Amino acid sequence: MRQRKLENRAKLLISCPDRPGIVSTISTFLHEKGANIVQSDQYTTDPESGMFYMRVEFDLDDFDQSFDNIQKGIAPIADRLSMEWRLESEKRMKRMAIFVSKQDHCLLELLWKWRSGELLVDIPLVISNHTDLRETVEAYGISFYHIPVSKDTKAEAEQRQIQILKQYDIDFIALARYMQVLSSTFVAEFPKQIINIHHSFLPAFIGANPYDRAFDRGVKLIGATAHYVTDDLDEGPIIEQDVLRVNHRFTAEQLKIAGRDVERVTFARAVAWHNEDRIITYGNKTIVF
Amino acid sequence: MRQRKLENRAKLLISCPDRPGIVSTISTFLHEKGANIVQSDQYTTDPESGMFYMRVEFDLDDFDQSFDNIQKGIAPIADRLSMEWRLESEKRMKRMAIFVSKQDHCLLELLWKWRSGELLVDIPLVISNHTDLRETVEAYGISFYHIPVSKDTKAEAEQRQIQILKQYDIDFIALARYMQVLSSTFVAEFPKQIINIHHSFLPAFIGANPYDRAFDRGVKLIGATAHYVTDDLDEGPIIEQDVLRVNHRFTAEQLKIAGRDVERVTFARAVAWHNEDRIITYGNKTIVF
Amino acid sequence: MRQRKLENRAKLLISCPDRPGIVSTISTFLHEKGANIVQSDQYTTDPESGMFYMRVEFDLDDFDQSFDNIQKGIAPIADRLSMEWRLESEKRMKRMAIFVSKQDHCLLELLWKWRSGELLVDIPLVISNHTDLRETVEAYGISFYHIPVSKDTKAEAEQRQIQILKQYDIDFIALARYMQVLSSTFVAEFPKQIINIHHSFLPAFIGANPYDRAFDRGVKLIGATAHYVTDDLDEGPIIEQDVLRVNHRFTAEQLKIAGRDVERVTFARAVAWHNEDRIITYGNKTIVF
Amino acid sequence: MRQRKLENRAKLLISCPDRPGIVSTISTFLHEKGANIVQSDQYTTDPESGMFYMRVEFDLDDFDQSFDNIQKGIAPIADRLSMEWRLESEKRMKRMAIFVSKQDHCLLELLWKWRSGELLVDIPLVISNHTDLRETVEAYGISFYHIPVSKDTKAEAEQRQIQILKQYDIDFIALARYMQVLSSTFVAEFPKQIINIHHSFLPAFIGANPYDRAFDRGVKLIGATAHYVTDDLDEGPIIEQDVLRVNHRFTAEQLKIAGRDVERVTFARAVAWHNEDRIITYGNKTIVF
Repeated sequence: MRQRKLENRAKLLISCPDRPGIVSTISTFLHEKGANIVQSDQYTTDPESGMFYMRVEFDLDDFDQSFDNIQKGIAPIADRLSMEWRLESEKRMKRMAIFVSKQDHCLLELLWKWRSGELLVDIPLVISNHTDLRETVEAYGISFYHIPVSKDTKAEAEQRQIQILKQYDIDFIALARYMQVLSSTFVAEFPKQIINIHHSFLPAFIGANPYDRAFDRGVKLIGATAHYVTDDLDEGPIIEQDVLRVNHRFTAEQLKIAGRDVERVTFARAVAWHNEDRIITYGNKTIVF
Repeated sequence: MRQRKLENRAKLLISCPDRPGIVSTISTFLHEKGANIVQSDQYTTDPESGMFYMRVEFDLDDFDQSFDNIQKGIAPIADRLSMEWRLESEKRMKRMAIFVSKQDHCLLELLWKWRSGELLVDIPLVISNHTDLRETVEAYGISFYHIPVSKDTKAEAEQRQIQILKQYDIDFIALARYMQVLSSTFVAEFPKQIINIHHSFLPAFIGANPYDRAFDRGVKLIGATAHYVTDDLDEGPIIEQDVLRVNHRFTAEQLKIAGRDVERVTFARAVAWHNEDRIITYGNKTIVF
Repeated sequence: MRQRKLENRAKLLISCPDRPGIVSTISTFLHEKGANIVQSDQYTTDPESGMFYMRVEFDLDDFDQSFDNIQKGIAPIADRLSMEWRLESEKRMKRMAIFVSKQDHCLLELLWKWRSGELLVDIPLVISNHTDLRETVEAYGISFYHIPVSKDTKAEAEQRQIQILKQYDIDFIALARYMQVLSSTFVAEFPKQIINIHHSFLPAFIGANPYDRAFDRGVKLIGATAHYVTDDLDEGPIIEQDVLRVNHRFTAEQLKIAGRDVERVTFARAVAWHNEDRIITYGNKTIVF
Repeated sequence: MRQRKLENRAKLLISCPDRPGIVSTISTFLHEKGANIVQSDQYTTDPESGMFYMRVEFDLDDFDQSFDNIQKGIAPIADRLSMEWRLESEKRMKRMAIFVSKQDHCLLELLWKWRSGELLVDIPLVISNHTDLRETVEAYGISFYHIPVSKDTKAEAEQRQIQILKQYDIDFIALARYMQVLSSTFVAEFPKQIINIHHSFLPAFIGANPYDRAFDRGVKLIGATAHYVTDDLDEGPIIEQDVLRVNHRFTAEQLKIAGRDVERVTFARAVAWHNEDRIITYGNKTIVF
């Protein structure tokens, strides 16, 4: 939602077994390292014996030095609390790759928000199994890679994709209606870093042709679901969902058209939240702070 | 939505194979019988070779005589157009029975809208398999019948229910979280006249415990679906659906509580539309005019 | 919502004092001229003594001949019923001009829906008081006219705009965050053919800087309103409104950014409805069929 | 959202000028006093020079002793940080009075949620300027006071109301469509403790008859606003707002009826949040944690 990166802003995300004193420990540690906490969110799955999750956003005066101090100083605390953590700096933009097929609506939504400065991310490249959107992408000054995928060449194509993504030092991938199932091998290279938009309100209409099936069932709302990609198709942790009211007058084709609007809005929200380090996954769920 | 029955208002609902001239034929026929058309809605599944559905609402000056004339005069038209039709008078209130179990929210929503004059229906009785809501119901001056249902006594209990419903001359039944599956025998007695509220966004979470399953899947919206009851559990034509935003902080129990609000709103809308003869079913879908 | 113009589809919109027999008269007339009615909507302001509005959509077999017959034949009926009417053919695309200033989100929404075939309209030109969006517009193969407007040159600039619009045979104008108040003279040239998007939920925050004022008031929802432009600023007939949930964390700047999404969706809906001849104005209101 | 009071749960709400170390200071203090923080939310109006607001929810083992220790121990911290604070125990239910006039929908919404255990509050009495709802209220076992209000007797009536409210030891007041303007004298007795539901989307349609004016303006959404009562009519800090889609078919009367649903939902949310100590006011706005 911010329109500019704050050069002295950092974020700490942690998860550990709940116990008294964690907030005090973390906030005191950060304070001692020169951090001014701007926002802090936490969630405990169960006050009795559950897990504790926390996201702290803070400003640092002497950024590089302080950031380094925090990174080094947190290790013993993490050990003591059996804590997983990641520290994120806003000085560096994340690098996102977009995968598309032939449809442009989810792609354009990201490109607009990126160009308007609403989505603060670097987008060095777009990969597609078709050439239809090459011109669209290149008009934004972004590299376009056409990597065809067939049943026989899939493994090879994915290796090529991985190689290019690494070459561009990509942090995460937005599947903007890519329409191809990614292999376990590919997913394992970017765990919890691949966001897909499914064109239904999951778990309704898992799999292919959700709009046709929504039409057949006569639903009164259609939906979209943004989720992290895991090995199980359409079963990964849900990040965001939204719906749109329809009625009996909509043909299956018109559901598809109307659905684009809810797909792109839902997808863009999920991508932004991931980019802002707002999401922690636990089990097969997400916490969106 | 109207707060009073209009004594000279009637409605004609028809369905037939599409062909040119139907609107002209019907509206001219009604005009000749003294009707002033107040609202008219139509829907053609496919302009080429589909079905035609129409709902006309009209006022009649000399009501009883004109209504009778329409009823008699429409038969030859219906024959010619291979048309199914029903003619509804607003002079007579429909008679609705409510089935409940232990939860009161969907029941109270109907009773409140009924008492405030927003839902123009007669509610002569409530049937329950438990006694918990007897006092609540009787406080509204409505008869309460306790008919326990167990696996062994189900057939017998349903026969007793049917007998009472016929005795009270009931037109349709609202299952206000009744929590019992009705047999084919029961359903066949009231075809397209039984409205159920399912506590999920169908077809997601068909069957038992949808909130627990919604919790496990980590959805970001919970929903409710009002539908006509058919022989297939949770598979009948959908009348209305709505959703409510939730997040990771909701326990399964809290999803249940929050879900009540979307259940009762969705249910009350479906019951009102049915009561106002706004719904035509076709195949396993509904047209809501 | 349709993705292609139906070459044999036409629409008749009428308004007249209510009286019995109008639906019959119109539908019989159309049937006799060879029309197959595909959709028909009507609205009576008051069954007793009000106005009657109707929109009929129909297919014609021998299009040009039948269309001509309807156009000629309807005059005596219109006389008899004191009826205003317009007949629209889908064979011809409407021609829309877009006015913009510096912001691109509403412009891009229309261009995207136009290019994807969702918005079936011709867009021969965009007019702007700034040059910022020239490149964006021209990339879509659309002519861009830069007509600067200052207090002193406004009358002259509007004359130039009118001249260009006439030269391009423009049917209606979409003000995509144009940010200039149009004079009565200009508005009189395109009565009920200019659609504006106001960045608030009217009548809240009429006038300038609605997001700043929404921020000051601490509202929990922000909105957008698409309306026809009349001589009274922000007072024309409302076509569509929508809202977006916000909270205390949003700065005035962030309200502006978040508001873009609700602006463009609301605006695109209004433009589509106008383009599909779904709107009849009466008094200072709209009927959207 | 919880269905039971947690006997060992307490909440601390603070506001003070922002400065580094506040989160650390507060969380360490609470930890030392035996608190296990369950949820913590904060908001800084402006990271540079703004105000800091925080709400911490925590469990205490030796409740009475620890609660007392916190209450005593916080004073010097508050002094040092120029901090306003309140400490709330969940052991004690808040005591709410409801004011009504003749309409029952907002009243019933609160009573249902109260009886179902969803709204954990004590409701010892309802005060009304009419007798219409006496029976409804007393059926719930709640005392009903009829205090007529006329222009001449208003001051006297309010004195009587204040006296009764004090006698019942009332914490806050829910104006469930009370339809009377309260004097400054009355408001001063319960600052930021009176919640009103206004039947429009403020600041649109401030004052009387909002539905009639919404009808005249031809809006496409109607709304409701729950806000704290201040001396300026309909100008107090907004707690919650929501809207409902309507169209040209709605008469002014039907807007009123439809509006009830959005009023009661919006009102119930605001009352629940106040009751759960989720709201901090600042200036003329609210933070809802």
